[in-house]
Amino acid sequence: MALVVRNIARADGAVVHALEGYGVATVHEAQGRKGLLASYMRPIYRPCSIAGSAVTCEVAPGDNWMIHVAVEQCKAGDVLVVAPTSPCEDGYFGDLLATSLKARGVRGLVIDAGVRDVATLTEMAFPVWSKAIYAQGTVKETLGNVNLPLVCAGAVIYPGDVIVADDDGICVVRRAEAAAVADAAKQRVANEGCKRARFEAGELGLDIYGMREKLAAKGLKYLDEAP
Amino acid sequence: MALVVRNIARADGAVVHALEGYGVATVHEAQGRKGLLASYMRPIYRPCSIAGSAVTCEVAPGDNWMIHVAVEQCKAGDVLVVAPTSPCEDGYFGDLLATSLKARGVRGLVIDAGVRDVATLTEMAFPVWSKAIYAQGTVKETLGNVNLPLVCAGAVIYPGDVIVADDDGICVVRRAEAAAVADAAKQRVANEGCKRARFEAGELGLDIYGMREKLAAKGLKYLDEAP
Amino acid sequence: MALVVRNIARADGAVVHALEGYGVATVHEAQGRKGLLASYMRPIYRPCSIAGSAVTCEVAPGDNWMIHVAVEQCKAGDVLVVAPTSPCEDGYFGDLLATSLKARGVRGLVIDAGVRDVATLTEMAFPVWSKAIYAQGTVKETLGNVNLPLVCAGAVIYPGDVIVADDDGICVVRRAEAAAVADAAKQRVANEGCKRARFEAGELGLDIYGMREKLAAKGLKYLDEAP
Amino acid sequence: MALVVRNIARADGAVVHALEGYGVATVHEAQGRKGLLASYMRPIYRPCSIAGSAVTCEVAPGDNWMIHVAVEQCKAGDVLVVAPTSPCEDGYFGDLLATSLKARGVRGLVIDAGVRDVATLTEMAFPVWSKAIYAQGTVKETLGNVNLPLVCAGAVIYPGDVIVADDDGICVVRRAEAAAVADAAKQRVANEGCKRARFEAGELGLDIYGMREKLAAKGLKYLDEAP
Amino acid sequence: MALVVRNIARADGAVVHALEGYGVATVHEAQGRKGLLASYMRPIYRPCSIAGSAVTCEVAPGDNWMIHVAVEQCKAGDVLVVAPTSPCEDGYFGDLLATSLKARGVRGLVIDAGVRDVATLTEMAFPVWSKAIYAQGTVKETLGNVNLPLVCAGAVIYPGDVIVADDDGICVVRRAEAAAVADAAKQRVANEGCKRARFEAGELGLDIYGMREKLAAKGLKYLDEAP
Amino acid sequence: MALVVRNIARADGAVVHALEGYGVATVHEAQGRKGLLASYMRPIYRPCSIAGSAVTCEVAPGDNWMIHVAVEQCKAGDVLVVAPTSPCEDGYFGDLLATSLKARGVRGLVIDAGVRDVATLTEMAFPVWSKAIYAQGTVKETLGNVNLPLVCAGAVIYPGDVIVADDDGICVVRRAEAAAVADAAKQRVANEGCKRARFEAGELGLDIYGMREKLAAKGLKYLDEAP
Repeated sequence: MALVVRNIARADGAVVHALEGYGVATVHEAQGRKGLLASYMRPIYRPCSIAGSAVTCEVAPGDNWMIHVAVEQCKAGDVLVVAPTSPCEDGYFGDLLATSLKARGVRGLVIDAGVRDVATLTEMAFPVWSKAIYAQGTVKETLGNVNLPLVCAGAVIYPGDVIVADDDGICVVRRAEAAAVADAAKQRVANEGCKRARFEAGELGLDIYGMREKLAAKGLKYLDEAP
Repeated sequence: MALVVRNIARADGAVVHALEGYGVATVHEAQGRKGLLASYMRPIYRPCSIAGSAVTCEVAPGDNWMIHVAVEQCKAGDVLVVAPTSPCEDGYFGDLLATSLKARGVRGLVIDAGVRDVATLTEMAFPVWSKAIYAQGTVKETLGNVNLPLVCAGAVIYPGDVIVADDDGICVVRRAEAAAVADAAKQRVANEGCKRARFEAGELGLDIYGMREKLAAKGLKYLDEAP
Repeated sequence: MALVVRNIARADGAVVHALEGYGVATVHEAQGRKGLLASYMRPIYRPCSIAGSAVTCEVAPGDNWMIHVAVEQCKAGDVLVVAPTSPCEDGYFGDLLATSLKARGVRGLVIDAGVRDVATLTEMAFPVWSKAIYAQGTVKETLGNVNLPLVCAGAVIYPGDVIVADDDGICVVRRAEAAAVADAAKQRVANEGCKRARFEAGELGLDIYGMREKLAAKGLKYLDEAP
Repeated sequence: MALVVRNIARADGAVVHALEGYGVATVHEAQGRKGLLASYMRPIYRPCSIAGSAVTCEVAPGDNWMIHVAVEQCKAGDVLVVAPTSPCEDGYFGDLLATSLKARGVRGLVIDAGVRDVATLTEMAFPVWSKAIYAQGTVKETLGNVNLPLVCAGAVIYPGDVIVADDDGICVVRRAEAAAVADAAKQRVANEGCKRARFEAGELGLDIYGMREKLAAKGLKYLDEAP
Repeated sequence: MALVVRNIARADGAVVHALEGYGVATVHEAQGRKGLLASYMRPIYRPCSIAGSAVTCEVAPGDNWMIHVAVEQCKAGDVLVVAPTSPCEDGYFGDLLATSLKARGVRGLVIDAGVRDVATLTEMAFPVWSKAIYAQGTVKETLGNVNLPLVCAGAVIYPGDVIVADDDGICVVRRAEAAAVADAAKQRVANEGCKRARFEAGELGLDIYGMREKLAAKGLKYLDEAP
Repeated sequence: MALVVRNIARADGAVVHALEGYGVATVHEAQGRKGLLASYMRPIYRPCSIAGSAVTCEVAPGDNWMIHVAVEQCKAGDVLVVAPTSPCEDGYFGDLLATSLKARGVRGLVIDAGVRDVATLTEMAFPVWSKAIYAQGTVKETLGNVNLPLVCAGAVIYPGDVIVADDDGICVVRRAEAAAVADAAKQRVANEGCKRARFEAGELGLDIYGMREKLAAKGLKYLDEAP
């Protein structure tokens, strides 16, 4: 049996917007170095940067039927997250589906599989993070679930989680933690701003972070010449 | 023994031109979802889009001698298709060979191996789809065949087949089927144009394609809340 | 025990500058087809082209502590070369470390691991060649060596070696051989310039390189039609 | 902060034993084709077949400290499940840790990373499923969680879930579903036994499963000779 | 439209039997170093060695329906060759299908995808060469062709071609060339037998093959000590 | 120009023999966690375990000519180490070359490429560690160096270094360090023997290594129930 859940809780729009501004690397650090999807997930064009609420969609290998079902569940500000039930690089998604998502105000697509029509998607400025670019077509025969939790590129994603995606990759933030993560990210960014100025002025991380003593204690030795 | 076939039949220029306009994803669908080369074949720059008649060239691993032989067999409008006899990522091809092909009016290169001088190739606007970018040089010691059928990136290619390549990858169309595929692609594009307008207007694929009944028959259930 | 070597011999600046101009493919050929790093090392943006003296830095998997140590050993014109002691794709390096290196006049980074903040690095025009782009954070717990020889992406690199990197990848030139390699590259480029003009004029490599006789001797046969 | 959860609910021993007997392929089918870990997870020797309750252990890349912590939480009949916070192939586990686990009655190890001492582990008949065999040593510097849910080789695993592993790979069964899955597997095996006898007698799947009509309806055509 | 071709020409049984005896490496050399399938195709157990006539079967990703159709077309002495229309590692084949093939006298399976039940297949001594071992189940929804030519693991295979498979991998021999290849292999084996005796007696390849002069002519230099 | 160095210093036979007994994991630890070749290097059969002095051989991609040259430089107790100048999986080595090496008393082969005839090599009990098993033949056209240092599977190897190889992989020990490493390994093994007895008796690594205090200091918390 396959299920579609119609109503999911979404994160607060202001929090999502803030997380988009901080970016993937900062958000991932701010929540304790967790939530990243696998490094093989790459944007089809750069630069691009989005955040939104996850609508999740499970698909069969080589079968994009459920994406059509998932589109109807997407609202403005969402990010569609698609994962196949076994590894597949087929081109599940192209410009027509992107047109449909864009018409609904969807921010972008994260898919642990392939996409196609990437020249058009780039022109449309519809951002996609995918495992592959591959024109291979798909069938419409097998059901899957929409808006149930799934694993996408190694990360667990619940419907309504915040997806943050940029040139560095993709990070998922649990909906209930989103506000706290945004706060932590804000502090981190402020802190980094100070440090950036000091680095620009030529100060060293060794001194900014006070590392010299700990390095010596661990046994680091300096030689004037090669041994 | 190694062979070079001098005269090959090429597809009609108007048909080739039409296929170029339709692009890889559409052409591949129009001919029944066949003919794609492997997804690891990527263009060295984007966007780019070509079509042309295949001149095929078999090379030994780490040996680009036969590419020089193949160049002579290329005419304006051709696409040179190179495949090694065993997997290799060496840089078989660079700016001098590209200059030579460009002087002959060749449209581009498809090579299941590596290329180099990609900054210059990009400046020259000479499009290449390859398995790798790698500066590794090659020798000139071992013969291979030119204009015999070969397997390139998982697809069988006959000399004179039409090669269509763009940002989505590469598709081969048999010469004898090229006109029919172009016709089918034309219809498909027209059909997609209509659909695009409906998607832009907010209609759903579920309705445009009449999927709701079939989904229900397969057993898809909608829940208002997560189970 | 971990060591940091403070003083390393660097190559002559004019030689380094010359090598940068010749580029990776030419330099690699000029020194006898050796010195390339693995083809999976890719620039985070294109086009970019640098050369500089290597400062080498060994890191533990998931631990970027030693990069902070290495920064202090870098001078204007250097290229920082980082390799983990076992394979790792974590994001060892981001915009703060790039700011620090840039403040010291470092030309770029070569890292057999991951980097992050690539949108900012691209804006800063700080070139990086890496194995991956991945936001995954690292810890600061384990020591490694700075300015001892290491293997990075399959190539041995000694501190002070010249690193040449561009869109084709990365090549290392031994410091003691740098001047001779630059001379050989100069001749090669001059020679290629002549050939380029002949290729542009439509001459074939078969004739320019005098290959026809050798091909025939090896047994190459020409057929007018497919066998 | 890192946490160790001391008390976890485990599945009923008889159910675990039954699942072990059915094997991975059958269990995975019986629960609706879900729960498989990635296909790159391979046993270090064959044949081997186990089932047990999962004790989960998160480790840092190149750091096996938490495995020592996890061992203490393991009881007879458990399977230790280890996943790094970012991809790593280091040899986290060898014969001493195996001796320790074996002394506690642990059934085996599932690790999304590397192991070593595999000759000794094989002699000991201590089964391990891993991503790699690699002698690379690890450090003991960074904390992680024990007995919190994690993603291992693409599958979510909760402490106390049933891990079934054999030559085909690994499948996870939720503790609450284990009894029902065992029942479904029992029926499936009974059903397969009947079918096996029919296949051995030369009957075809086309007839056993009544496929001919559906194939014809979909459009399958039989030709006497190649077209 | 999908097609099943009922009658295919098969190679002479004595020739097939001879090719089986010579093995993959010898057969591949004897036919001019062609016909190998990709090196990722591995036997599920070793040692094993077979040859037989190819029955070809194209399947959709994640869909093993057509294998049931192909079984009916198999005769004693055949090898079933299965390739998906796009890359897939699902477990298309298990012990029931093996039982069915074995009942028909089929020699083994070559599949550019995954298989499961490998412990049972090993006990049954039913040899399989595959891309993966993976328990992932498949559906039965999409048609494909049986006994049309296809590309399997990078090699073109025509129905009725001879498949030779052993611990070194898989080689395809065109039916029309099989007798000549068997003759060439016979000579090669005789020749190797003589050489083996000379190697065992301590003679060097340098002398047996008369290489010393050619090496010197190419410029090989011997030094008594490291330079 | 290509060079063959005739005379190389080899390690003391007793030291080599001792290192063989300790095995790869122990030797690698005893020399400070360095010297491992990449984890993709696997033995063609298991179990097997050797040590010997390295004779190094550089080959061109798809060209095994220099292996014949290297054989003559091998003595009893050596291990032949072969690396291609660019990545290649061809079958450089088969049973005839193994017969030749065995006749000279060579202990085994380490090759960062492919081998073939593995069924025969297994029967002969001639151990090989390789990147691939692949029947693909090679040519004899291009020179390379014998007994110069090279990089094999990511590790630098000097002629005369000690190669230790077993089921866990391969480790290189510098000749000048071999005696000291053997001593360190001896102590390590003695130490492990004591620990093994304690582990067998049920003691925990947490107590044997005194980890509890350090874990608490780092912040590890124990909970009785899941949070």
